[in-house]
Amino acid sequence: MRSVTIFGATGSVGEAALALIAHDPARWQVDTLTANTNAKRLAELAGQCGARHVVICDESKRDELVQALAGTGVEVSAGRAALVEAASRPVEVTLAAIVGAAGLLPTLRAAERGGIIAIANKEALVCAGPLILAAAARSGARLLPVDSEHNAIFQVFDFERPERVARIILTASGGPFRQMSTEDMRSVTPEQAVAHPVWSMGAKISVDSATLMNKGLEMIEAERLFPIAEPQIDIVVHPQSIVHSFVEYVDGSLLAQLGTPDMKTPIAYAMAYPDRIETPAEKLDMIAAAKLTFEAADERRFPALRLARAALRAGGSSPVVLNASNEVAVERFLDRRIGFLDIPALCEETLAAVGNCPAGHLDEVVDCDARARSVAARIADEWEKRA
Amino acid sequence: MRSVTIFGATGSVGEAALALIAHDPARWQVDTLTANTNAKRLAELAGQCGARHVVICDESKRDELVQALAGTGVEVSAGRAALVEAASRPVEVTLAAIVGAAGLLPTLRAAERGGIIAIANKEALVCAGPLILAAAARSGARLLPVDSEHNAIFQVFDFERPERVARIILTASGGPFRQMSTEDMRSVTPEQAVAHPVWSMGAKISVDSATLMNKGLEMIEAERLFPIAEPQIDIVVHPQSIVHSFVEYVDGSLLAQLGTPDMKTPIAYAMAYPDRIETPAEKLDMIAAAKLTFEAADERRFPALRLARAALRAGGSSPVVLNASNEVAVERFLDRRIGFLDIPALCEETLAAVGNCPAGHLDEVVDCDARARSVAARIADEWEKRA
Repeated sequence: MRSVTIFGATGSVGEAALALIAHDPARWQVDTLTANTNAKRLAELAGQCGARHVVICDESKRDELVQALAGTGVEVSAGRAALVEAASRPVEVTLAAIVGAAGLLPTLRAAERGGIIAIANKEALVCAGPLILAAAARSGARLLPVDSEHNAIFQVFDFERPERVARIILTASGGPFRQMSTEDMRSVTPEQAVAHPVWSMGAKISVDSATLMNKGLEMIEAERLFPIAEPQIDIVVHPQSIVHSFVEYVDGSLLAQLGTPDMKTPIAYAMAYPDRIETPAEKLDMIAAAKLTFEAADERRFPALRLARAALRAGGSSPVVLNASNEVAVERFLDRRIGFLDIPALCEETLAAVGNCPAGHLDEVVDCDARARSVAARIADEWEKRA
Repeated sequence: MRSVTIFGATGSVGEAALALIAHDPARWQVDTLTANTNAKRLAELAGQCGARHVVICDESKRDELVQALAGTGVEVSAGRAALVEAASRPVEVTLAAIVGAAGLLPTLRAAERGGIIAIANKEALVCAGPLILAAAARSGARLLPVDSEHNAIFQVFDFERPERVARIILTASGGPFRQMSTEDMRSVTPEQAVAHPVWSMGAKISVDSATLMNKGLEMIEAERLFPIAEPQIDIVVHPQSIVHSFVEYVDGSLLAQLGTPDMKTPIAYAMAYPDRIETPAEKLDMIAAAKLTFEAADERRFPALRLARAALRAGGSSPVVLNASNEVAVERFLDRRIGFLDIPALCEETLAAVGNCPAGHLDEVVDCDARARSVAARIADEWEKRA
């Protein structure tokens, strides 16, 4: 039996993990579940999996949660400090599945504590990768990527001989606008952007998949997770999303992990590591899949790729600024305050305006993140005034 | 520096291995090279790689070989006994690349001696797999498959958790007659059968690829090499021959090895194991590859698949009889004495006529192999008389 805490239990990754737990409940003891605002669903999930403790980030939802769990014996906490505190409780597996920079502090605290950190929160790695890695190295925590691409790479990466890895190749579905001209992208609506052709995910990550910023952030994430450098990271567009990524070795071998587009497989791999467990994920049938295609990624139509590679190369605070400005941009796009093409444009302007700021310590990362958000908001406000 | 002996140096696998050695000669010390009859090429190769010792199986070629190597100091041996003796010489890597059952004895002797046995001789594993495995277990020899399919599986098979492997899936190019009707296969010529669409190989294995007997024998080989049972072995037709095979795990992950169709990559993997070395093999470009397709294998048009699965299930001497009758059939087909469809038909009649004979000891395997050959020849002779 393994003890598990899930940060972001009501998101798509959290729900998939809880489906895995429900598939074989004797294997797992759920300690804590957390959610941002959805108290109702959090209470339901806690009841289903027998969690000992729940945390709601939004303190105004505390009473609702307490009432929903009255008489169950489930301990209830609320607020951002309680969220971070929950990461200190001793568990064997922590699933870090909070979307965005909000997941940074609990992920870092979990890395300081130790155990397996199944990490779905790419923004934490992008913004504070070196800090999280250093904390994990001190505590002995094992960071296991849940993102299907990085999980694929992890499964076929020879960590004993990293010098024999020539390249890693991240696959990208290409998103819903893979074949759309820049001109047509101008008028894309939030509804169109959120309708991902393959993966079923939250709104933020769906928009990131449509701009390919998601793939750009994944390049940065890959550089954190694997002992490789920026020139060794390539992207190939693979619309069927069946090959989840490749590792190329010096002898000419490419190793790959394939599967149906179901997050339960990489989540199961990370949670059960180094063992493998049966999952309710649909099995991949290569004969039914029939055809896999691959094409080049177009950095001109998808400037987010270019921005992310530049930020990775520049290092320092650039990934933090890119991520923060992208979060602001996506939120404004979803609110119909800026257009789809304005998302990378806002990131690019923010990166230029903020320049380099220190990002070696956690408080610096937090300051830099806040500064980038305020600069991005100011630029977008000016755009609105002008329009 | 690793010492190497190559059995079957003048064949396509042997030549590819010597190209690898020429690519980085400082890494290798060639001890022995062997050939069946091609003394001229054997002498050339020995000169190029600095071999210490050569063996020509055909004793009538001894003088030609001695003359060709006069003054070089290369030791010359000849005959079948010398071939087997050569496998007793101490080397770190033995490449067993003799085609057909002729490779059985030297491969077995090498397995008794120890070291890495890079095994390209699938007939030896098919006929005497349990004997070779037992010898390797006693000596500590490590059997590493060179066949691209088994090499691919080896690269992604979790030997520490074989119970987590759900299936292995061998890919098959489908051969030159993948889309041909049974009716049209009747009139196939040796020239057509030898022209493989993807791999450049010897005549015997090219015909085996055209009948899919090669894939059938590979199923049997896989059962020897990996801790799995017959129902866990599947085949999928993949005409581009880029995915060399898959391992499916219980969690829904399929791991695969991909590469250009160049034997130098799996040979390099086996010879350098557990390290990886740079090879002159062309690198795989997924964007240029563009499209990979997968389809079901048709056991009705390619009865060799059905026969091989039945032989694997039946066990005992059935694989020996299948392999022996197939060698007789392919030879007669290449001599234009029987038709293409007669190849599996001759195997099926021979399997029925021979029945089960003991095959637990080497002499029994050899007897059974000889008996199957004589029965197959008798049946084919009768066909010729009747025609």
